[in-house]
Amino acid sequence: MQGKDTTMEKVVSLCKRRGFVFQSSEIYGGIGGFWDYGPLGVELKRNVKEAWWRDMVSGHDDTSAPAGAPSPYEMVGLDTTIIMHPQVWKASGHFDLFYDLFVDCKTCKARFRVDQVKDSECPRKPSKHPGEHADCNLTEPREFNLMFKTTLGALLDPSAEAYLRPETAQGIFVNFKNVVSTSRVKIPFGIGQIGKSFRNEITPRNFTFRSREFEQMEIEFFCAPEASQDWYRYWRDRRVAWYVSLGLSSDRLRLREHETAERAHYSCGTADIEYAFPFLADGEFGELEGVSHRSDFDLRSHMEGKLVRDGDALVVERGADGQPRHPGSGKDLSYFDEATQRKYVPHVIEPSAGADRATLAFLCEAYAEDSIPDEKGVPQERIVLRLHPRLAPIKVAVFPLIKKDGQPEMAADIYRNLKRRWNVFYDEKGSIGKRYRRQDESGTPFCVTVDHQSMEDQTVTLRDRDTTTQERVKIVELEALIAERLRAA
Amino acid sequence: MQGKDTTMEKVVSLCKRRGFVFQSSEIYGGIGGFWDYGPLGVELKRNVKEAWWRDMVSGHDDTSAPAGAPSPYEMVGLDTTIIMHPQVWKASGHFDLFYDLFVDCKTCKARFRVDQVKDSECPRKPSKHPGEHADCNLTEPREFNLMFKTTLGALLDPSAEAYLRPETAQGIFVNFKNVVSTSRVKIPFGIGQIGKSFRNEITPRNFTFRSREFEQMEIEFFCAPEASQDWYRYWRDRRVAWYVSLGLSSDRLRLREHETAERAHYSCGTADIEYAFPFLADGEFGELEGVSHRSDFDLRSHMEGKLVRDGDALVVERGADGQPRHPGSGKDLSYFDEATQRKYVPHVIEPSAGADRATLAFLCEAYAEDSIPDEKGVPQERIVLRLHPRLAPIKVAVFPLIKKDGQPEMAADIYRNLKRRWNVFYDEKGSIGKRYRRQDESGTPFCVTVDHQSMEDQTVTLRDRDTTTQERVKIVELEALIAERLRAA
Repeated sequence: MQGKDTTMEKVVSLCKRRGFVFQSSEIYGGIGGFWDYGPLGVELKRNVKEAWWRDMVSGHDDTSAPAGAPSPYEMVGLDTTIIMHPQVWKASGHFDLFYDLFVDCKTCKARFRVDQVKDSECPRKPSKHPGEHADCNLTEPREFNLMFKTTLGALLDPSAEAYLRPETAQGIFVNFKNVVSTSRVKIPFGIGQIGKSFRNEITPRNFTFRSREFEQMEIEFFCAPEASQDWYRYWRDRRVAWYVSLGLSSDRLRLREHETAERAHYSCGTADIEYAFPFLADGEFGELEGVSHRSDFDLRSHMEGKLVRDGDALVVERGADGQPRHPGSGKDLSYFDEATQRKYVPHVIEPSAGADRATLAFLCEAYAEDSIPDEKGVPQERIVLRLHPRLAPIKVAVFPLIKKDGQPEMAADIYRNLKRRWNVFYDEKGSIGKRYRRQDESGTPFCVTVDHQSMEDQTVTLRDRDTTTQERVKIVELEALIAERLRAA
Repeated sequence: MQGKDTTMEKVVSLCKRRGFVFQSSEIYGGIGGFWDYGPLGVELKRNVKEAWWRDMVSGHDDTSAPAGAPSPYEMVGLDTTIIMHPQVWKASGHFDLFYDLFVDCKTCKARFRVDQVKDSECPRKPSKHPGEHADCNLTEPREFNLMFKTTLGALLDPSAEAYLRPETAQGIFVNFKNVVSTSRVKIPFGIGQIGKSFRNEITPRNFTFRSREFEQMEIEFFCAPEASQDWYRYWRDRRVAWYVSLGLSSDRLRLREHETAERAHYSCGTADIEYAFPFLADGEFGELEGVSHRSDFDLRSHMEGKLVRDGDALVVERGADGQPRHPGSGKDLSYFDEATQRKYVPHVIEPSAGADRATLAFLCEAYAEDSIPDEKGVPQERIVLRLHPRLAPIKVAVFPLIKKDGQPEMAADIYRNLKRRWNVFYDEKGSIGKRYRRQDESGTPFCVTVDHQSMEDQTVTLRDRDTTTQERVKIVELEALIAERLRAA
């Protein structure tokens, strides 16, 4: 549960100080919208991604229906490239439609997203919005495609233009047929993928929340058309439950169904899973994940070509010559359902999560300030990251109380033994209080200390991050006890 | 040990057939130099990366010197962005120096790397090399920078040009100071990173060996200058041992020290770890990993600016105005060594591995064809992937012998129990022989079959992939037995 005093400034400051997140290329003045993960951050984000992969893909039970699911289903993984054939983005609609409107100020050279002008400050006179100041000279709104463009150098023709993917999803759709024909999956089944995506945001902002390079965790779930609304509801609820299971409290987490008018032209239903990030005003929420019912839009696009809405129907957009404006692959991406002996283009439910946004939400939720007594009983302010143990970068820290009398050797032995199983940290520098505080700020659930008594009776103290209580534990029972508590969390 | 009949065609065919590797954007005709990992491939590559991360970074023991190491050392991880500040690549030298020479044929529009003309076929007359055929009309050699270029759209000035990183290493160097000041690492220590890199290869070739988008596993190891040659030797040998520990046989693996003339201008020593890939002629080897002694070249470049060699010294390259041609950050990246009370710019040892090349080498090494008796004792040809169990995408497959008499239910129970711990596959389709063969081709070390006897005495058969022997095992002892065999492998 996010502490009431939590502010974005405090979270960002901790991230920098403890090596969770650094600005990319910081020694060169940074680069807007790009963030690096430091030694603790990389472990935290790896744990977020690993939890998703295990819970959604590799650890999924193919043989029985989870609570709320219409039937059992299968899950497989995929890892596709960031640069794909440029026609993928033309057929998908991203080439024509994936843009923002922006205006430039001819006076100060600043650029603003049209929908954010009213939230932005004039760089010359921050009390005013752009356009409200006498010197402002805004251009007409222009379109700006959010895909980063590059060139494949070995080709000499215009098809050498290529794009960095703005989503991992299309890599799944274009591999649908390959997956069906090489693995044993039958509908209903899902394909999961984790990978980097890129969006050339005009105004990246709010730390890692809106950046230009980010990582997604996406599922495309393929099902029969008539079952699709049931699967849509299942995935919406399943994904909310996942965040809750890893510690996001439900009063800062919400599921918001989009109004019909708000949905994309192909969608039969979209819900956002949102979190009340501390950079937002009270009562506002930011998107963590979108769950969309995409109908047969994507597979049909890659068969027939770019689709547009015509009344209730989606039809191929055609030029004056009657040919598809952006042709699809011409490959048959329909599916033959052996159970019903029917052939159809599967419908798709897409739970699309942001790994960086999830990581940021877990960090914000975990951040807390409290007061605990020090060794002499004097209350000390501390900052603590109450991360779920599955997500904590370090599971256990091991300390010798003092740097002599065999304590470092005994502590190192314990460290090495636990390290075979978990990410464990050894530290013998500084006062024990400072070492505890450092681990509290790192989110480490358990600290083990070797002291004078340890040498006599082969026991250590085990300190709990959240309660700060310490108990004496026999060294031979330590590993099993920690394993049990990590499992129970 | 790679089978003697292994050819690249057979490996590529298996990769496609079993869902290890697909051509990117295949339904659109593919895109040269880009490859996707399918359901089995993504798990295999994840296991390769996880083994590297665990053995090199997160599971490293900070407290004792491994065999051959001059002293104990610490390791931390990092995850930096693909797009960085463009000045990074100017100071590092990549902007000026990271290019290939190519020629175009004005007749057939094909492009060739100058150093590969003698290995290439003329597209019009494949029996000739380019330039040897009467119609050939080759241009003079031109330089082609291998960095993919893109544009950061929200900026209006020339600094909006940006590059996709051609190596992950620079992300580590520019974060050196941040890591030292936020974690407790002291020299000697290393920073590890896994991530995508991009090189605009003129002629990508040999499946995933030389592709335009690939994943690296890089360590930058920082040490005192006088200890650097010892650490160079340590890392060279340590990395060879890693490949051997995961099953690469030493007669197809070799360590090759570069001659002085072959080294980069900054290097004090470079060795390649090479593997005899099946696409190479007999006696030829391809690079898996380079281990370089980079001296203080990288950190000094990012302090002072792009360095060039002047006799024995590396000096800042300066323009006619005396200013650095490509300035560094101006930040002090030296290190104060408390033990010796000295301040110095650390020397760097860089073991730089390719995750895709390692994955390909493990696949080639594992591929074998042999003959085993079927249920009736008749010899059957089979293809088997003898992958190290740590790398195998699926650890255990569970089958009911027949699809009735309670066997599927019992098998599913066993599957669910084992699945909590490992990646396990359930299959009830097709003959038992076909199911075994399918798992052999997938590299699954163990198959568990529930049969008629299982219902009577609560035992199953446990089949070994490599020996194909089957033994009866009590269900209650199954998990512990598999765990023991996986550990012992």
